[in-house]
Amino acid sequence: MLRFRCNQLFTSPFEALFIQSFKPHTSLRCAQMGSYSTTSSSAQNSPKLVFRQLFEKESSTYTYLLADPSHPQKPALLIDPVDKTVDRDLALVKELDLKLIYAINTHVHADHVTGSGLIKTKFPGVKSIISKASNAKADLFVEPGDKIYFGDIFLEVRATPGHTLGCVTYVTGDGPNQPQPRMAFTGDALLIRGCGRTDFQGGSSDKLYDSVHSQIFTLPKDTLLYPAHDYKGFTVSTVGEEMLYNPRLSKDKETFKNIMQNLNLSYPKMMDVAVPANMVCGLQETKSEAC
Amino acid sequence: MLRFRCNQLFTSPFEALFIQSFKPHTSLRCAQMGSYSTTSSSAQNSPKLVFRQLFEKESSTYTYLLADPSHPQKPALLIDPVDKTVDRDLALVKELDLKLIYAINTHVHADHVTGSGLIKTKFPGVKSIISKASNAKADLFVEPGDKIYFGDIFLEVRATPGHTLGCVTYVTGDGPNQPQPRMAFTGDALLIRGCGRTDFQGGSSDKLYDSVHSQIFTLPKDTLLYPAHDYKGFTVSTVGEEMLYNPRLSKDKETFKNIMQNLNLSYPKMMDVAVPANMVCGLQETKSEAC
Repeated sequence: MLRFRCNQLFTSPFEALFIQSFKPHTSLRCAQMGSYSTTSSSAQNSPKLVFRQLFEKESSTYTYLLADPSHPQKPALLIDPVDKTVDRDLALVKELDLKLIYAINTHVHADHVTGSGLIKTKFPGVKSIISKASNAKADLFVEPGDKIYFGDIFLEVRATPGHTLGCVTYVTGDGPNQPQPRMAFTGDALLIRGCGRTDFQGGSSDKLYDSVHSQIFTLPKDTLLYPAHDYKGFTVSTVGEEMLYNPRLSKDKETFKNIMQNLNLSYPKMMDVAVPANMVCGLQETKSEAC
Repeated sequence: MLRFRCNQLFTSPFEALFIQSFKPHTSLRCAQMGSYSTTSSSAQNSPKLVFRQLFEKESSTYTYLLADPSHPQKPALLIDPVDKTVDRDLALVKELDLKLIYAINTHVHADHVTGSGLIKTKFPGVKSIISKASNAKADLFVEPGDKIYFGDIFLEVRATPGHTLGCVTYVTGDGPNQPQPRMAFTGDALLIRGCGRTDFQGGSSDKLYDSVHSQIFTLPKDTLLYPAHDYKGFTVSTVGEEMLYNPRLSKDKETFKNIMQNLNLSYPKMMDVAVPANMVCGLQETKSEAC
């Protein structure tokens, strides 16, 4: 399995971070301003992680900022940035003295326009990332098993199709030198006490059930789940909680498929704008130049 | 200084938790389903903390659920519950197998109705808590320096008047056997890159400036700040960040007072409903019976 595949040569000094060797740490890292420890008491050599959850009210989308403050360059990434809140997110990156290197999407969204392209017009050094299976444009494409490094911390890519064909879940690494408990950024595959719809964009309730049960519910029960959306004001859940209390995915497969078939949801109002835009990083007018 | 003052006798078995001695731990605690570690890697004997941030969209209010999952009774408290989201919050408490013992307010809110009274009608064993300086009704009143225990974890009460006369900030305890980094629930005294208005309910920009600078900005810089509201999609900040980047409170006192005097804000639409209701735990019709 390759550590990573990309569609262009690395050009910025931060590119090297992406493919660097994974070096375990033996000493404690210092807390930094703005950092947020997810370190467990049993993992003395865990690095600190800068972590921020950010909300876009109109589409109820969560954007996540992660960074390794212990690395000299403080490399950072954004998961699922929204075009309308790019200025907020980039201001925060600057205030926390981080170096944004990646703008990552969990999938081609249908309810909002991604901020990836807009970020790249402001910071051309930032690379956009999406799954190869999405068929969307980006600088770098990921496949299951790939690792996305930012400093000494990495995200592992897991294929979780079903809401769309190209949905992936990004999970922080396993090991004493990675944040504990683990964190899974599930996109729309698994929402808190819910899941994304499966009736368009190559959706399949059969596939979604298998994805969640094989790729997410097999993670440790204390794994923190951070979805792309929440509509009820929840910010985080855990694998253990969703296995017990998710009203759809805690059921057997046939019941789940039946639930999904009878949701009778209306056509997403942003879909005809968002999907074509998100196939090219959210910027239709400039297309591949900004991807 | 008294550890706590209350206006009635303790009656439930959980009352004992409130006044129990503070016992340092020498062994590691086990992670539990739904728990969320804020433990630093340097504090091996820190207890785990169940922590959930919950959002009410209409008033942009954050409610916080905290619990000690290591204690046999898993005692929990809610800070700033909203009447409209009480059912959501209580369902979560039940799913996480916690025992709610306190419904706490940072102050008498003017923009939403507190859920404290409603919670007490559903769970009469829960005690409502507010500052003595608020002059509102509650089961228990706190003053600066008091400690509110839930299991072996406690919140320390700090007076932070200025938005209202009775505003307090609740801060997790200092010490290796308390969550690290510390967490401060600032109400409306300090918002992320902002602060509450000071033009009604005994508000004073002069007092608010002194409160924040003496009671919050003196905490360790990595203290996590959790406000009662956010209108831009931020979920957390730190003392270090706000000292540097708060556009109001990072200024000198005269500049701050001038900013606050010229906000030209409209009259809060919920004020005439919310303030009288919140003086009696959010339930005017039943008044003191539910407080």
